[in-house]
Amino acid sequence: MAQKSVAGPEIERLIQLLSKLPGLGPRSARRAALHLIKRKEQLLVPLAEALGVAVEKIGVCGSCGTVDTSDPCAICADPDRDPSVLVVVEDVADLWALERAGAINARYHVLGGTLSPLDGIGPDDLNIAPLVSKCSQEQIAEVILAISATVEGQTTAHYLMDQLSHINVNVTKLAHGVPVGGELDYLDEGTLTQALKARTRF
Amino acid sequence: MAQKSVAGPEIERLIQLLSKLPGLGPRSARRAALHLIKRKEQLLVPLAEALGVAVEKIGVCGSCGTVDTSDPCAICADPDRDPSVLVVVEDVADLWALERAGAINARYHVLGGTLSPLDGIGPDDLNIAPLVSKCSQEQIAEVILAISATVEGQTTAHYLMDQLSHINVNVTKLAHGVPVGGELDYLDEGTLTQALKARTRF
Repeated sequence: MAQKSVAGPEIERLIQLLSKLPGLGPRSARRAALHLIKRKEQLLVPLAEALGVAVEKIGVCGSCGTVDTSDPCAICADPDRDPSVLVVVEDVADLWALERAGAINARYHVLGGTLSPLDGIGPDDLNIAPLVSKCSQEQIAEVILAISATVEGQTTAHYLMDQLSHINVNVTKLAHGVPVGGELDYLDEGTLTQALKARTRF
Repeated sequence: MAQKSVAGPEIERLIQLLSKLPGLGPRSARRAALHLIKRKEQLLVPLAEALGVAVEKIGVCGSCGTVDTSDPCAICADPDRDPSVLVVVEDVADLWALERAGAINARYHVLGGTLSPLDGIGPDDLNIAPLVSKCSQEQIAEVILAISATVEGQTTAHYLMDQLSHINVNVTKLAHGVPVGGELDYLDEGTLTQALKARTRF
């Protein structure tokens, strides 16, 4: 049975659009819509404005591929960042995660995905050529491949390694090992094997 | 440690507002914001427009208390609805649920909550007085209390029963029993007792 429309077409459209957000289904989208409508001044109006600003201002950084309100983005334009180190990530979300950790004060390069022949994603579909030309033209000493330890991620890392091999740049990758706070008991054999192999002096 | 800002203030504000929606936490709000930004034309622009329309058009129906783009709302203004039956619900979400079920072709009255002395919610905080005056002024034959079977819901139902007792109107309530599709094994004793008490001829 098709869901009966319960409110005007404007409310239905709002619910339908909200249900496309990750984490919200049709049911929670209805709850979210009602929540918004009931909190007009505190939430609906500010969110409508914030989305309007996003529509107007947010774009992709032509240099690194992240999203920001300026191009080049705030990170690429930051003079305090080490310009000789480039951290390669799959996605903007990974860049945000590294920035939240405050782990490194370098610049980034967002690939926009991983190589996945089964899904028809080849090198030309990713932001790879600009990375190679950036590495050959700029004074970049190190490229850190901060890419997922999945099959696709590692395939992509090997491909990048290959592409960068003829350029005078050090290519490094993230360490494998026990996550901080992780209990050995819950870790898979692959991680444990890598952590043992890469053991360091105490 | 305070969360480090990972993007421009406009993106941070969008994430912060999205995280106030029910069902989204700080982490999923970031995912949702990125999802929106990446799908500018398909999702971000339409959602910004839908929220703008909501800000402009959606209000509370002066007659029943639901939210809609017109006042009186589409339901109150519908000439095909039985004007002699009024279904009293706690919240707009309950009205929507009954409308989705298509269970009744009557009009509604939204209380806006339940009596809850512990939370300081008394009769004056709910949409009760307009219900009583509506019942005394209009030709209403039946008031159906479609209120939750919780302590607060039932307290509210009893209070309404009391308020409506001096008016010539039949007050009814929803039947208790086994939910359609429900397995006896998983039902609580209260429901089973009520279902047995209210048993009907096969």
